[in-house]
Amino acid sequence: MAQSSAPSVGWPASYTRVVLASRPSGNPRPENFRLERVSAPALAEGQVRVRNHYLSIDPYMVGRMYDTQSYAPSNAVGDVMPGETAGRIVESRHPDFPVGQCVVGPLGWQEQAVSDGRQLRRADPQRAPLSAYLGVLGMTGVTAWYGMTQICEPVPGSTVVVSAAAGAVGGTAVQLGKARGCRVVGIAGGARKCRYVTEVLQADACVDYKAAGNSQALGEALAGHAPEGFDACFDNVNGWVLDAILPRMNRYGRIALCGMIARYGQAPNQLTAHGHLLISRLRAQGFIVWDHPEVWQTAVDELGTLLGEGRLRYQESIAQGIAAAPGACIGLLSGQNTGKQLVKLIDEHSINY
Amino acid sequence: MAQSSAPSVGWPASYTRVVLASRPSGNPRPENFRLERVSAPALAEGQVRVRNHYLSIDPYMVGRMYDTQSYAPSNAVGDVMPGETAGRIVESRHPDFPVGQCVVGPLGWQEQAVSDGRQLRRADPQRAPLSAYLGVLGMTGVTAWYGMTQICEPVPGSTVVVSAAAGAVGGTAVQLGKARGCRVVGIAGGARKCRYVTEVLQADACVDYKAAGNSQALGEALAGHAPEGFDACFDNVNGWVLDAILPRMNRYGRIALCGMIARYGQAPNQLTAHGHLLISRLRAQGFIVWDHPEVWQTAVDELGTLLGEGRLRYQESIAQGIAAAPGACIGLLSGQNTGKQLVKLIDEHSINY
Repeated sequence: MAQSSAPSVGWPASYTRVVLASRPSGNPRPENFRLERVSAPALAEGQVRVRNHYLSIDPYMVGRMYDTQSYAPSNAVGDVMPGETAGRIVESRHPDFPVGQCVVGPLGWQEQAVSDGRQLRRADPQRAPLSAYLGVLGMTGVTAWYGMTQICEPVPGSTVVVSAAAGAVGGTAVQLGKARGCRVVGIAGGARKCRYVTEVLQADACVDYKAAGNSQALGEALAGHAPEGFDACFDNVNGWVLDAILPRMNRYGRIALCGMIARYGQAPNQLTAHGHLLISRLRAQGFIVWDHPEVWQTAVDELGTLLGEGRLRYQESIAQGIAAAPGACIGLLSGQNTGKQLVKLIDEHSINY
Repeated sequence: MAQSSAPSVGWPASYTRVVLASRPSGNPRPENFRLERVSAPALAEGQVRVRNHYLSIDPYMVGRMYDTQSYAPSNAVGDVMPGETAGRIVESRHPDFPVGQCVVGPLGWQEQAVSDGRQLRRADPQRAPLSAYLGVLGMTGVTAWYGMTQICEPVPGSTVVVSAAAGAVGGTAVQLGKARGCRVVGIAGGARKCRYVTEVLQADACVDYKAAGNSQALGEALAGHAPEGFDACFDNVNGWVLDAILPRMNRYGRIALCGMIARYGQAPNQLTAHGHLLISRLRAQGFIVWDHPEVWQTAVDELGTLLGEGRLRYQESIAQGIAAAPGACIGLLSGQNTGKQLVKLIDEHSINY
């Protein structure tokens, strides 16, 4: 009981969180976010207090800032920004979650959170760094696994194209495609990211969409790297990038529709090459990893094995401190990050549980 | 042998065919077609001569008139227009196809044709009229069957929307949906066709896309008839009609992409609502019935049973004589036909085999 009122074990009595201050018109701007300092509430029976070490910043969060329909409900103005965090339990009134247990869950953009444990997953920092449970062993890794293995059907010897291939999801998709014996062509923005995709992630080729600049030129560059066409596509971008891919899809190809980066900021996002869905008898399937909890463990096991074998590389862009979260989120849209964008909220080694 | 040079058994020594005279710019016009009178060639060993009674006119033929990529190769200028016909063998040098056998096959826009039999299917005029083998028991029926049963997954109690619902394929799709226990909402052009869809085909509702006029209004009309949303979509139109449907699709919905009537004539055909594929986790699949010969007999059996039970209604728009074929084809684009468009090349009762 004393723990609930006195932060004697390393958790401050007040903490900072980030709320949605206003809805963006166009791309999100700093004034759409607001930092708030709040007092830590007492725990009720069955609750735990989590001190968050890492916050995950993902493109879907931008979609929730608008009140237009997206695959996730809008965030209300004034509410804490949604997001997954990885942290450690610092106080517990829940029999299944002892103090010291590392956990991952949708606790939002805040330094601390109270949870009833139902949405928490345990993480083992001996197996992989805590941050990895927000990335290759977390939502982004499982997203890549689901789209690549369950929709793209990556038959050995086939050719797969992955857009936003230097991103957290795309980068894992590239490596899963390679692990399944496919030829993989990435699409990324800028020469530096393209080198990362080919040299670190081992894609067979990578096309710079920023250098191409438009759908026609991007399509020609793709054709140059894959004259045999694409049998599958893992798409994170949609819009004009997908328009460049569609005419190069081989008959009976599969397209995993994973994201719409091209749409964020509410830029016009017409598709003009969709006729190829019929012409080439393609299957395009949208998916959200949260719909498929039944595959989570299978996915994490395969990803963990690849990680242990050194066959799953990832990068993290780590911003420091909760106040850096809005900037990290805005930076996603202009492609400032390479790999998984995280915000580090606390230095694990500087505190003593 | 004598038969090959002397048409003593009811087949004229010369006949008329229709060739592609020039590629259309915009919608096809009469001058893009040319009638030719040619002599009937002698049969080689292993060949049969078919006198065509009916020619099927289908939207895909229009696509073949252009040299842009479609799901079927372009027809060459000067070549006979492609199409399925139903007729009777009038001369045979093939052991499996006796004179008198009724057959269906891709013999093109011509009064007679010579075939080696490989692409011919037998038809039984005792089971159904010969023309039905070009419609509900032919390519259009099997197309509807494949899209509805293999892609739309019509679970009893679910709601399915069918575009071009008064057409040959759409009308059969409507009835297959009803036979599987679904609520079916049609989309058709004009009050007369809509009445046909609800009163004859027994759809639960039908929306007049011509009265709606644009995607927004069509979407609102659809929502009025299906506030529960659509679980599946059988689409023959694409473009702005599909844009009206996409936001009304329920999560995990299936879309059978069967045709692109909106695209013929090469009108712009942007899609703007495709983001719902991801938002609602939809599966959109293009298909061509020719890819699936393995299901043909299963499909025809189910369709034949429904036909025998009086649960499969169809309409035919029958133009008279080979010279009427171009006009019948052009008329498809403006929706002049109701149901299957055929051209009758010969009066079955006026000739004596």
